[in-house]
Amino acid sequence: MSATVFDRTHYDPLIVQEVAPRDGLQIEPTWVDTPDKIALIDALSTCGFTRIEAGSFVSPKAIPALRDGEAVFQQIARPAGVIYVALVPNLKGAERALAARADELNLVMSASQTHNRANMRMSCESSLAAFDGIVRHVKGAQVRLNATVATAFGCPFEGRIDEDRVLGIVDTYREMGIAGITLADTTGMANPRQVARLVARVLERVPAADLTLHFHNTRGLGLANVLAAYEAGARRFDAALGGLGGCPFAPGASGNICTEDLVNLCDEMGIPTGIDLPKLLALSRGLPALLGHDVPGQLAKAGRNGDLHPVPDYVLQI
Amino acid sequence: MSATVFDRTHYDPLIVQEVAPRDGLQIEPTWVDTPDKIALIDALSTCGFTRIEAGSFVSPKAIPALRDGEAVFQQIARPAGVIYVALVPNLKGAERALAARADELNLVMSASQTHNRANMRMSCESSLAAFDGIVRHVKGAQVRLNATVATAFGCPFEGRIDEDRVLGIVDTYREMGIAGITLADTTGMANPRQVARLVARVLERVPAADLTLHFHNTRGLGLANVLAAYEAGARRFDAALGGLGGCPFAPGASGNICTEDLVNLCDEMGIPTGIDLPKLLALSRGLPALLGHDVPGQLAKAGRNGDLHPVPDYVLQI
Repeated sequence: MSATVFDRTHYDPLIVQEVAPRDGLQIEPTWVDTPDKIALIDALSTCGFTRIEAGSFVSPKAIPALRDGEAVFQQIARPAGVIYVALVPNLKGAERALAARADELNLVMSASQTHNRANMRMSCESSLAAFDGIVRHVKGAQVRLNATVATAFGCPFEGRIDEDRVLGIVDTYREMGIAGITLADTTGMANPRQVARLVARVLERVPAADLTLHFHNTRGLGLANVLAAYEAGARRFDAALGGLGGCPFAPGASGNICTEDLVNLCDEMGIPTGIDLPKLLALSRGLPALLGHDVPGQLAKAGRNGDLHPVPDYVLQI
Repeated sequence: MSATVFDRTHYDPLIVQEVAPRDGLQIEPTWVDTPDKIALIDALSTCGFTRIEAGSFVSPKAIPALRDGEAVFQQIARPAGVIYVALVPNLKGAERALAARADELNLVMSASQTHNRANMRMSCESSLAAFDGIVRHVKGAQVRLNATVATAFGCPFEGRIDEDRVLGIVDTYREMGIAGITLADTTGMANPRQVARLVARVLERVPAADLTLHFHNTRGLGLANVLAAYEAGARRFDAALGGLGGCPFAPGASGNICTEDLVNLCDEMGIPTGIDLPKLLALSRGLPALLGHDVPGQLAKAGRNGDLHPVPDYVLQI
């Protein structure tokens, strides 16, 4: 019997891209001051991440919570070895991100036409045309490109998404010259079997080093999906401190997979991540004060396995 | 490459034992009236479960929330094909459970001495002696026996639990004549790698039909642990409607794995459970009114994948 993800003697490192500053904060109703955003990102930069999605350059009218993208990118520390990613929806966003010295641009289009219209307010064809303009514009610039297939595992309006449609979009992205590909389960509809199958097919066309999986924990399957994707060969995953995030079109549901819960899973299984979990936990425990509400992450409440509880007094008398 | 749990063409059925009426309600601060308990169990009995842990016969002083065990067991409907399990801590509890016509007695001892003293208020040796008395007492009676190894994957006071100690307890249970074995991750410390390894070792001595896995979602790993155990050959799992439950020694943490989240995982992957998910969801959505608080389960908030959202009006104009 060949070794599965559950019983390997060697585990390849799993790369965690922290997305709370972008995908987490974007739907927060409370305004987070620019210095607080910068402090959060700078603190995250000391935890061992090699990739942080630090903001977005979308219309301030569309996402007011992230309207200070320029200031954030210009003022955060830039330690060597950390790639700071900016989400951009269009050419104007790309120009702003380049001016703010983002290391990587992340373009987003949904596999679902309806979701793309709802989320990006344009058809998929218009999105792809915009991507083409961005690729031409940044040619020669020192910037990486990534493109996300949102709703790759299901759409809250359309339901199932055809796998071949997702693969076709991946091919289109790569043909455009976009190296990095993210498959996003935008509203947490993926299941581990589906994930294993789609990731295996995508890895036939995209090297693992270029592929990111973006899972939400909407239906409690986020970490199971990570293991399924890892088993299929994926090695890079988005996650948000505290499990922040969510989707405006799936109200009441929980958000991105939680970074510290993911890192704890990896630590306990022996999968290397390079991330300092106690530092991360301390940061996560500051989120309720910063945002004014409880967050979905579990480890910050439960503590690590090694954080033992005091023995009750009465036990000593038994 | 052999098929893993992520890519099988055939999946054996997964048996879900519903434990909310016992493990869920036992720590609820709000008293649930006996008729409400009976109505909940009777409603669960129509959802397709073959096993329901319906109550416990412990000291009413220790667990006042379940002090009406007799009335519950005597008044619930008893449809054919459903086994109603009672937790019993000692001989007196076993006598009460037999008198109330429980189909199965579930005995509990922790692998951790400290946890057993904290939880059962006796040493492991005293627990085993009590089990021996129970086994003798029920000999000849029409009742099944199961025994749980609590804290089998870790103890909040002692930390790691030696695997050989768990296996030794399993052997002791079986030598006593107790057929059913439950491995319980009482405070959610298990990880999928550890689960796969321990389950494989236990299945060398216990047939899969006699083994139950009891996971908590304390650190977000409950459903990932289910898949790891299933991959290793386990087929029966405890779960609680709404994800109720928890452990008084792990305050703030979430409880048992959530039945409807587990059934949704199985439905989406094609693992047969025989459980009617829409019915179950309707029941789960009644829990906040019954208990006076929100519950951890995710599916009741997010809905099933197939519960599509209405398309926003503005989308039609794009």
